[in-house]
This record gives sequence, C-alpha cells and structure tokens, in this order.
Amino acid sequence: MSLIVQKFGGTSVGSIDRIEAVADLVIKTKQQGHQVVVVLSAMAGETNRLISLAKQIDNRPNARELDVLISTGEQVSVALLAMAIIKRGHSAISLLADQALIQTDNFFGKARVTDIDSSRLLHELEHGRIVILAGFQGRDSEGNVTTLGRGGTDTTAVEVAAAIKANECQIYTDVDGVYTADPRIESRARRMDTITFEEMLELASLGAKVLQIRCVEAAGRYNVPLRVLSTFAPDQGTLITYEEPQMLDQVVSGIAHNKDEALLTICGVPNTPINLAKILQLLAQHAIEVDMIAQINQKDANIDYAFTVHRNDFEQGLELLQSLVQTLGATEVKGNCNVAKISAVGVGMKSHAGVAGTLFQALAAENIAALLISTSEIKISVLIDEKYLELGVRALHSAFFVIN
Amino acid sequence: MSLIVQKFGGTSVGSIDRIEAVADLVIKTKQQGHQVVVVLSAMAGETNRLISLAKQIDNRPNARELDVLISTGEQVSVALLAMAIIKRGHSAISLLADQALIQTDNFFGKARVTDIDSSRLLHELEHGRIVILAGFQGRDSEGNVTTLGRGGTDTTAVEVAAAIKANECQIYTDVDGVYTADPRIESRARRMDTITFEEMLELASLGAKVLQIRCVEAAGRYNVPLRVLSTFAPDQGTLITYEEPQMLDQVVSGIAHNKDEALLTICGVPNTPINLAKILQLLAQHAIEVDMIAQINQKDANIDYAFTVHRNDFEQGLELLQSLVQTLGATEVKGNCNVAKISAVGVGMKSHAGVAGTLFQALAAENIAALLISTSEIKISVLIDEKYLELGVRALHSAFFVIN
Repeated sequence: MSLIVQKFGGTSVGSIDRIEAVADLVIKTKQQGHQVVVVLSAMAGETNRLISLAKQIDNRPNARELDVLISTGEQVSVALLAMAIIKRGHSAISLLADQALIQTDNFFGKARVTDIDSSRLLHELEHGRIVILAGFQGRDSEGNVTTLGRGGTDTTAVEVAAAIKANECQIYTDVDGVYTADPRIESRARRMDTITFEEMLELASLGAKVLQIRCVEAAGRYNVPLRVLSTFAPDQGTLITYEEPQMLDQVVSGIAHNKDEALLTICGVPNTPINLAKILQLLAQHAIEVDMIAQINQKDANIDYAFTVHRNDFEQGLELLQSLVQTLGATEVKGNCNVAKISAVGVGMKSHAGVAGTLFQALAAENIAALLISTSEIKISVLIDEKYLELGVRALHSAFFVIN
Repeated sequence: MSLIVQKFGGTSVGSIDRIEAVADLVIKTKQQGHQVVVVLSAMAGETNRLISLAKQIDNRPNARELDVLISTGEQVSVALLAMAIIKRGHSAISLLADQALIQTDNFFGKARVTDIDSSRLLHELEHGRIVILAGFQGRDSEGNVTTLGRGGTDTTAVEVAAAIKANECQIYTDVDGVYTADPRIESRARRMDTITFEEMLELASLGAKVLQIRCVEAAGRYNVPLRVLSTFAPDQGTLITYEEPQMLDQVVSGIAHNKDEALLTICGVPNTPINLAKILQLLAQHAIEVDMIAQINQKDANIDYAFTVHRNDFEQGLELLQSLVQTLGATEVKGNCNVAKISAVGVGMKSHAGVAGTLFQALAAENIAALLISTSEIKISVLIDEKYLELGVRALHSAFFVIN
C-alpha cells in the first residue's frame, strides 16, 4: 500500500462531467490499495470570474479580502468531488486549509507554506477516507485566509506530500508528461519516462509550462517523487526524481523555448566596475528581473552591456536605461522585442564535452545567429531572432535526439 | 455611540451596484458615530446556482459537503463588501464563521447556534473597523462547516447582536417595514412604526413573509430590538420591541394571510379519546405538521376532525387519513386545497372584548363563510375559501383600521 497525493487542475474539474471522471480515477487508485489525498484547483474559469467581480469594485482590491474571495473557488470544487465520491459509495471528506492545518506566512496573494500539521490528514486516511483538500489556500498565524499565488495548487500538493511522507505526488494536467521539446513545434518530440529535478527546474524556468518552478523546487527540496500525467491517459506520464547514473547516457534531455523575453542593450559604457552594478540596481529597484546578461568589450575600452528582461518590463526597462546614459557617460540604448530563447537542458552535459559545439553547429546549419548566450552546468541557452524560434527548436531536437 | 448590527439579504447584495450601495449605507451609519457589524447573505441566485451544481452530481448530496459548498456564497459577498468599504477609505474586515467564533451543533443544513465567543468581534470593533460577517454559516465543535437553514442569515444577525449586546439589530429587506396588511392586497395598508415580538411572531407564522419566525423568536428571547427596513428607504422601517402600555390602544395591529395551507377532514370517527391521538401521531410520523385543528360533534355521537396542513403535504396527508378509515371505523375522508387563512393579530386583544364579533361581522357582510376557526390570546385566524382571500383581507382591514 502506497500513500499517494493526486493533484487536479482547473481543467480537470472544469465541469460536472469532468469532476465525475476525476471521482472515478481517484476511486480506482483507492481500489488498487492505496491511500489517497486529492488536492484540487478551482473549476476552470471560476478564479477569473471572482477576480473580475473584485475588479468591478476596485482595480486594486484589498489583498486580504481578495484571498477570502478567490479561495471560495477551491472550496466549491472539493465539496463537489467529495459528493461525487460519496455518491459512488466510497468514504470521502473535504478539508479546507484551516481544517487541514495548513499554515502560511501573511503575504496575501503570494503566501508561502510555513507549516503543515499532518495529524488531521493522517487521521482521516487511517479511517479509510479519501481526503479531498482545497489547494492554493492556507491560513496565516492569525487565522486569515491566504492564497499561494500562481501554481499554488501544485505547491499545496507537494507540500502536503512532503508533510505526510507520500510515496508519490501525481500532478494531473492537460498534457501527458514532459516532452523532449514542445510537441506543437516539433511533432517528433518524445515523452520522457523520467527526468531529474535539476533538469525539470531548468526546463520549467526556460518556458516548458508543464509545471510551476516553485512546485519542482519544493518537490526537489523534500525529495518527493513527482509524476506529471494526464487525466485522459493516467497510465503514462513522466516521473521526476533525483539523478540516477544510467540517465547520464542521455546528454540532452529536452529542448526548451521562451518567447517572453526582450533584449536591452546599453552601449559605450565607460569601463568602471561600478557601472554594471548601478545599472542592475536601478532595474532591481523597479522590480525588473534580469535573466541573461552579457558584456561586449569595444575597441575603445568602453563596454556594451546586453540584458534580457520580461517582455512586459521592456518599455520601462528602456526608459530606465535611457535615464542612465548621461550619468554613466554611455553612448546609447537599444532594445529588441522580437527575440526568443531556446535552450538545451540535460544533466548529461556535466560529463559530456562537445554539447555546445553540436548546438551551435545545428544553429549555423540553419543560418540562425546567436544574439546572446548563457550557460550553466546543465543547460545552454541562446537568444535568437523570434522568427527562427520553431526552426531553431527543430534543429536542436534533431541534433540531440535520434529520430525513430 | 450605539452598537448596531445590520443584516442585508441576497437581493440587497445581488449585484456589484447593490453592494456599492450597501457600502455607502454602512459607512453612513459608521459616520453617524456608531459601531457597525454587517451580516450578509449570498448574492441573490448564488445559493441556488451552487445547489444546482450539487444536484447534478447527487440528487441527495452529502449534507456535510453541501454545507461546505453553499457556505461559499456568503464568503464571496463579505469579501466584496469589505473591498468596497476599504476602497472608500474606511477600515473594514470580513470574518467567516470560524474567525468570528460562531459555533453550532452538527445538524448540517439546519444547524443551530450553540455559542458565539464575542471576543474577536469586539476586538475588531474596538480597533475602529467595520466588521463584515458571513451569515448563514457556522462551525460545529469539530470544525466542520455548517449552515443554519432557511432564514439563517437573519438568525446569525440576531444571535450576534445578542452576543455583542448590540443596541439594535437592523434587518434590511425589500420591503420598508411591517404593514397592517399586505399592501399588494390592501393598498390602504399602513406601515407600523412599532410592533411587539408577540405580534410579530403571530404575523410571521401566519404568512407575513417579512421576517423568518426563528429570527423573531431569537430576538425576543435575547430582547434584541429588531428593526425591519428597506435598503431603498433606510430612514423608515418598523421597530419590534417588547410590549409597551400605550400600544394597547391599538386593538389589532395587523391582518395576515396565508395561502400555503390545505384542509383535511376525516368524518364519522367514533368518539374515543385515543382516535385523535392516533390520527395526529400518524401525520407526525410522516413529518406532516398540523396547523389548525377543529372537531365537529355529529348528532350520531361520532366526530368529524378537520385539520390544516401545508399544501405540499396535502396529497400524502389525504392518503394517510384514508389508510386510517377502516382501523378507526370512520366513514370518509375529504380534502380541500382551495382554502386560505386570514388572521387578525394584536396584543390589544388581551384587554379588549368584542374583537371576534367585529371580525365575523365584517366577514358576514361580505358573505364569506368560515371553514375553520382558531384563536390565541393575541390572534384570531379563520380559514376561508381561497377565492375570497383578497376580499377578506380588505374587509378585516377596514373593520379594524381607521382609513385616513
């Protein structure tokens, strides 16, 4: 008998029919002899409906009250799923954050779990019940309702899995696993059976939208085996675990891509170490996160600094850099929104030389120029012209994967 | 400075515009120097929407989970009102049942409040906050979500008013007070400035649908002054208090009516005391409540018993009585659905003779026959043919009220 946490997102509980299907799937797991804790999101569309009610009242609604409002979405879905399971003759109970003793800090709208007292959850499991837990929500130390922000239900699932020492945390989503590239771009992309936490972290942060990065981080931290799988094909999926030796045979695990970035360049900055710090501090003061950074030393000993920022921050970033031109004695600022980042990720890179060579040869063969490069132990990212995104993804996929 | 509880029903918070209007009204009360606790229902239609989701899953959904589901309705409205008040620059906080420490028994769907610890409510008021409390809901001693059943938000308002020793509990509704008769039937009906708890109890149970009877009972029990008033005309309304001597001048306070009843008669029952008990017990076993009861002794020493029951119970009541005919040795069972009850209510009746005379004279003048009569210290009820309902109400109103 295993202890399994199953998380279902908004699409999986988006209608009564879908909820009935989830009930059947959960009961099947229980009948296989496992103890099951189910963690649910709100029905698809419900959170947006609630936020739109709030915005009609106040474009920046009070954060505490917004959490009281939107946490009702998960409360509705857990009650409905519990009813559906009970109707089928099985024992189930819904638990809200205060009932499941899920404590968070008090950063409304983006709270972090600080403690889960597993006693109530374990008590219900020991009594043979399927526990249906409202995801995305918690209570702070004063009993205020909090929500965990984007991807919060995944976070709840992983945190709960860690607290009750679950054997596996299953994340049901609308894709059936993690692929070697986005199947919408590279039709020959393959579903991976396993992938390491490290790789998944790089893939998640690089734009593979299967799992939120916080969820993967947490699962890795607690060493909770995480499985991504589809409600429609629950027997497949990708298992995310710690690195195992035989996995190193695969040098590159996946090709990720991201169209959310924009390129900023400030040219001709006098070569004083403090100047780069000044630039980054100004961006940070305005909460603009910088992803890739590169410097190009010019012949005149001045330096061009190039950054990528989120596309939403592009206009503001451009203005901020322009405000620095005179202070720093720089020459000009340039910006480019039409860029995309493609990356090859794999723990195998650690022990295999030549990955970068293969990668740039594949890009060169398609005449794709690199605008910016950044590397880590297990990934190489290249910023390219946005129009070459699909071509680039397919080129890298062909270079690193044997096509059957 | 007074401490005031204001309750708003589903229609009053039925849209964002209505919620904004309630925010203005609450703030106005606060600015007059009062401390305010607001108790809210779900937005009109929301509870029905949630119940219909549940019924799609199970026609008899699990009671515990149904309460988890439908209690979200009030949670949504308190969050939205709190946002609207905060947006206007005032301090407000929403509280759910567990935060406001409202404890109930564990009869899901029709729980009763067993305890309110007022410490949190008073703490928020002392800090100058307008408290927005989710009505209709509680928590049982194990922390399960419960709901209070029909009229539950009124009950929450009165129980909370008693717990915090409020000076007044204001029930905002879509009528602007209690009238001497239904204004839709008798256009000359007048709004009463005051009425006693006793009278209001009789009026409520007799079909004046302004207040739920449990709410009036509770207010009377705790001696919480209760005011019924309209969101659209908040300066008027009717105050419900304990009897004051000068009020006795008015013999009859109001004319109530009720079309929800049906008449059942079992004829020729042998005159043994146990027979009436047998009849009533059989009805009670099937949860059929009997309102009026009369017996007509026939010349042959047998007895006809006549009852009124709720119209929804008519068919079943008829069958049950028929099943008794042979056992009791009765002759036959008759039923009549086309009946209505009209009543004159007033504490003044206690000290004024002749009310019954005036009443029956007024009915006789319109040729309206009484099918059944029942009386209490402060009311006289008459069952009549349904088609004379409006005529009867106007006849009694003219008889007891001076028309200006």
